[in-house]
Amino acid sequence: MKYLIRLRFDGSAYCGWQTQKNGPSVQNAVMDAVRSVFGSVNGFSGCSRTDSGVHAMDFCVSFSVPGQIPCDRLPAALNSHLPRDISVFSASEVEEEFHARYSVKRKTYSYLIDPAPIRSPFRENRVWHRPGEYDPAALTAAAQALVGTHDFTSFMAAGSKITDAVRTVFDAGFSFTADGLLEFRVSADGFLYHMVRIMVGTLITGISNGELSAVLSARDRSRAGSTAPACGLYLAKVEY
Amino acid sequence: MKYLIRLRFDGSAYCGWQTQKNGPSVQNAVMDAVRSVFGSVNGFSGCSRTDSGVHAMDFCVSFSVPGQIPCDRLPAALNSHLPRDISVFSASEVEEEFHARYSVKRKTYSYLIDPAPIRSPFRENRVWHRPGEYDPAALTAAAQALVGTHDFTSFMAAGSKITDAVRTVFDAGFSFTADGLLEFRVSADGFLYHMVRIMVGTLITGISNGELSAVLSARDRSRAGSTAPACGLYLAKVEY
Repeated sequence: MKYLIRLRFDGSAYCGWQTQKNGPSVQNAVMDAVRSVFGSVNGFSGCSRTDSGVHAMDFCVSFSVPGQIPCDRLPAALNSHLPRDISVFSASEVEEEFHARYSVKRKTYSYLIDPAPIRSPFRENRVWHRPGEYDPAALTAAAQALVGTHDFTSFMAAGSKITDAVRTVFDAGFSFTADGLLEFRVSADGFLYHMVRIMVGTLITGISNGELSAVLSARDRSRAGSTAPACGLYLAKVEY
Repeated sequence: MKYLIRLRFDGSAYCGWQTQKNGPSVQNAVMDAVRSVFGSVNGFSGCSRTDSGVHAMDFCVSFSVPGQIPCDRLPAALNSHLPRDISVFSASEVEEEFHARYSVKRKTYSYLIDPAPIRSPFRENRVWHRPGEYDPAALTAAAQALVGTHDFTSFMAAGSKITDAVRTVFDAGFSFTADGLLEFRVSADGFLYHMVRIMVGTLITGISNGELSAVLSARDRSRAGSTAPACGLYLAKVEY
């Protein structure tokens, strides 16, 4: 049986989704849980790589297993084998052709900034604490320069091995959450390495729409702003 | 100069406010920060004791120091010496007679319950995860039996050495927060050991207003429900 599961994780304690030598990965924790429940697993695939310290409200994983468990019982079965900073919240059966990474049509990231003068003990590692006055309408107006199909080389970490940096951003905008955080949300058909964090680091300087268009056209990482910290970034939604 | 400071803390890593032998205390961390800033401190007093794992959105501390720092700069000065799970957000000068504990007129506690079937990785140690269907209006109606001046012996941890268990509860009620948590808020002129946690553990069983009145009249801890876990409890507001 092939399953697609959706999970949330607090990435603070992990080196990221993918298995690496420098620390525990979310991937290993989830794969271990699947093996504990089903005995073995094949074609295990996550919807994307994530950096160390990045979080997910909706991360998708597909895998094939020899047995079968009803979808409404699978999340609890897996959660009983997972650490408390990773939590599966849904499961569905998918076709053999389905692939959590290659079948993605649209992904949405959320980036949270705490603008309060004093940092909150309850938001440690969960937001970028950057005190200041922000105008979501003005920031959103500037961000419209990113919407559309563009070569995003200026917004890709230097040294990335990707050769085709063309992506389509469906929408991008800022708003305040109910509890006073500044949230940047951006949806695209795919993202380059550090793309959202460089967007945030650039937009937050107060760059205008026109200046941002020029940065984009330059296809030069050095023209964009600094990379915002990982702790504010959340993979928020994955659509197939 | 005598100061009153207000702070927030995530109590997960502490044995509580007061200094104890079994772990680091919030009191010690704050006293160390005050000493680092002013050199020495006298009459250091917190507004209440808290249990291990209990949090605060508004905890008050008064102390006298030899020097003087403008109130608008004192929070940042102290925060630079505090761990990131404790944060001072305001400071004011107070009269010599002022005492953070004995001058309190009214305290409000908040207790957070996550009713979702699946626990959230982002709420670990911050809420009581108790899946279920809750009716805030019915719970609030039952809770009205607690409002008023009563002997709260039934809602005090067994073995407590307090002899006068009479307290005045100003109000008590349940509501859902914007992000779907069930919140119990209760204000009183003072609280007994475990009082809020026993109130929550009792109300959450679905007890009626009349049954709750009978539990209260019995002045017998064994008649009330179990003690809800510390992790959901927040000191929310302190008034002088």
